[in-house]
Amino acid sequence: MVDVVIVGGGIAGLVAARELARAGREVTVLEARDRVGGRLLNAELPGGGPIEVGGQWVGPGQEQVLALIKELGLATYPTYMDGRHLAEFGGRRSAYTGRIPRLSPLALADIAQAQLRLDRLAAKVPTSAPWEWDQAGRLDGQTFATWIRRHTATRAGRSFLTLITQAVFAAEPEDLSALWACHYVGAAGGLDALIETSGGAQQDRIVGGSQRIALSLADELGDRVVLDSPVTEIDWTDDGVRVELGGGREPVRAHRAILAVPPPLAGRIRYTPGLPGDRDQLTQRMPMGRVIKLNVVYDEPFWRRDGLSGQANSDRRAVGTVFDNTPPEGGPGVLVGFLEGRQADVASRLAPHERRRQVLADLVGYFGPAAGDPVAFIEHDWAAEEYSRGCYGAFTAPSTLTRFGPALRAPIGPLHWAGTETATRWPGYIDGAVESGRRAAAEVQAVLDVPARRT
Amino acid sequence: MVDVVIVGGGIAGLVAARELARAGREVTVLEARDRVGGRLLNAELPGGGPIEVGGQWVGPGQEQVLALIKELGLATYPTYMDGRHLAEFGGRRSAYTGRIPRLSPLALADIAQAQLRLDRLAAKVPTSAPWEWDQAGRLDGQTFATWIRRHTATRAGRSFLTLITQAVFAAEPEDLSALWACHYVGAAGGLDALIETSGGAQQDRIVGGSQRIALSLADELGDRVVLDSPVTEIDWTDDGVRVELGGGREPVRAHRAILAVPPPLAGRIRYTPGLPGDRDQLTQRMPMGRVIKLNVVYDEPFWRRDGLSGQANSDRRAVGTVFDNTPPEGGPGVLVGFLEGRQADVASRLAPHERRRQVLADLVGYFGPAAGDPVAFIEHDWAAEEYSRGCYGAFTAPSTLTRFGPALRAPIGPLHWAGTETATRWPGYIDGAVESGRRAAAEVQAVLDVPARRT
Repeated sequence: MVDVVIVGGGIAGLVAARELARAGREVTVLEARDRVGGRLLNAELPGGGPIEVGGQWVGPGQEQVLALIKELGLATYPTYMDGRHLAEFGGRRSAYTGRIPRLSPLALADIAQAQLRLDRLAAKVPTSAPWEWDQAGRLDGQTFATWIRRHTATRAGRSFLTLITQAVFAAEPEDLSALWACHYVGAAGGLDALIETSGGAQQDRIVGGSQRIALSLADELGDRVVLDSPVTEIDWTDDGVRVELGGGREPVRAHRAILAVPPPLAGRIRYTPGLPGDRDQLTQRMPMGRVIKLNVVYDEPFWRRDGLSGQANSDRRAVGTVFDNTPPEGGPGVLVGFLEGRQADVASRLAPHERRRQVLADLVGYFGPAAGDPVAFIEHDWAAEEYSRGCYGAFTAPSTLTRFGPALRAPIGPLHWAGTETATRWPGYIDGAVESGRRAAAEVQAVLDVPARRT
Repeated sequence: MVDVVIVGGGIAGLVAARELARAGREVTVLEARDRVGGRLLNAELPGGGPIEVGGQWVGPGQEQVLALIKELGLATYPTYMDGRHLAEFGGRRSAYTGRIPRLSPLALADIAQAQLRLDRLAAKVPTSAPWEWDQAGRLDGQTFATWIRRHTATRAGRSFLTLITQAVFAAEPEDLSALWACHYVGAAGGLDALIETSGGAQQDRIVGGSQRIALSLADELGDRVVLDSPVTEIDWTDDGVRVELGGGREPVRAHRAILAVPPPLAGRIRYTPGLPGDRDQLTQRMPMGRVIKLNVVYDEPFWRRDGLSGQANSDRRAVGTVFDNTPPEGGPGVLVGFLEGRQADVASRLAPHERRRQVLADLVGYFGPAAGDPVAFIEHDWAAEEYSRGCYGAFTAPSTLTRFGPALRAPIGPLHWAGTETATRWPGYIDGAVESGRRAAAEVQAVLDVPARRT
């Protein structure tokens, strides 16, 4: 019997556990996999250095994760972005510096006015309760694709916003509630904050790889973190929980539970008694985005010699977004690319060698023949991972936030909900995970502090 | 070890089992609940007669279920509809006979043109593969609410189509992909077929209650049907499956499995190895509709004395749709009402006595003070049922059919998929469940007939 059992050893769960342990609570973190970190995962480069195959960036405004990184004694370094970036939009290819690719003045004006409208809307969303906003019903009743179509005048404008949607959500504009899109933009402080490198969410990387945050937290928690422990069932009353692990293992009993897994996965656990309809319906309507992340490794970052930053975007290639992901030591050279949304659907159905062939053809298209001959090809398909089932995060299908939004965080008896999707700032980012873990820990603390509840 | 294990003892699973048993196969049906029938369920009226608290109607064009009813020696009788129906739209109340409520000529013209457009679109959907249609992308990228807004000119027209959506899908127009709405209408042969009583899907009832279909099938299958057997995990290879039941019970082994549960519930079973991303993502994006069904019982059907049919619709009451649900003997009098979509959300959060008070106030509004004093009040909240988690059926959120539609039926190794949602005609209806059970059985038969597969 512990005070609090935490399901999920990603950042949200580990942060919640750390807060509670520091407050003197007995906690157990149950992690389904043989590792901590959830959607943060380091792999190994040839030569042994770490490379991130999951979430990897932090940026300004992400105060909670930046403070945590500091506390843990970790360091960041800037994403490489010297030189010209490549862009292919509407059949035109350009190499540019600064923020804005070379597009026709008409397209640039169209994009600028659409972004202005989106930012203005997003600034009004009450991100702790989007469903209470007076425009919520209208926006939640349409897809983001419908919104884009209504608020752009050019094909280039639409295709630019589509590419951004894919890059930010690993989903298509057709998938998302327009309200979720506005909420997400608002919770980051504007579209630029989401899409920029310098000054935005892709600005910095973690020395040692992003999973180090989770590994450091787990080190601190020691044997409070139990790996290889997928939770199959939670029996609960107002006084506590019994968490079943299957495979004949002893259940874990606690006064309170924090479920720190994405909503669709939380919905796959069996609860006895069953959860109220509102919560259950929510978990039926928050699918995960889909991405296959590719780290393609070369002896050296050859593109830098050509004056290229390694950043590239295209509306006509499967790998629509590329960054230089070379380690801070300057080698080996690494390009990181993303197959997102429908491109991930299509690519996941290919044989590995064919997928590799197509990805390399895209990289050659961007960076020339040298890109066709990597020394390693490291891919990670997050939708195939049983305990993530997609990335970057869950989003809401239309009409979900307005019908079931409050169920995202509202505790049910002894059950509390964490995970980046529940955050009011930077949901879907590491920062949102930190916020959610702290908030859930505070909820539990407030309840445990009332002596009557501990009988 | 049996030939085929079938998960789910609703109509789809029982029909599949019957087909296979008749072909000489050894089958086991595992049903999680202590009863068969899935979303078909009889309750008891005061006095002991049956009343349907789940799906209840059949109609012309539903050839598979009508043939099955005949085979099983069951009988149907027409839904009561003599007298005037009540309608409240746009602030006007009318009592009318025939198909069409009294509305302003402008509203009627608006509704007629919208229905014509919808029927024309729906007639073009290839219902066995909507994702292959050339208009699929456009329609799947928008909600049905967006479609309605674009294709109606009056508030009355919009509110009529909204009411119809609620009544047909137990969902809001904002929830559904417009492609799913078109597919559903097309698969029924037109909107009238879905919404009409005489000549439509509400035309007839089953003597003894609709669950009799399932009970008769289960009688025939005898001890092949095993109740109280929730499936927690399925281990599979190309050669067979091992189905875990939890609670220390012996697993069931079979050459093939048919999963005859709604897609979101199929997604909550643990598969080892995990299912491909396409299938998993599909199950994350097919939520169930939501309805609380109310059978309100009176000594006699008093509304008939007033020349009323008991049918009523309103765009301003929580109980937007009502029918006379009196048994064929003519008593006791029963009104059946539905709280659908958002109305179910709101009503589910009320205390039972408050919900009852509000429902009765609506019935009094329709039928006068006598409706306020029932002898029994039988409600059933399908979203709260652990092994249904909503009704009438699952629908697809936008962008789901075009991205993941083929995964709805495509077998994965030894795993085959049934359930009304997988049907090409009348998905969401009992007829679709019958079709799906037969189709899945035929798939399995075709594979089992190849001797090489039976090693």
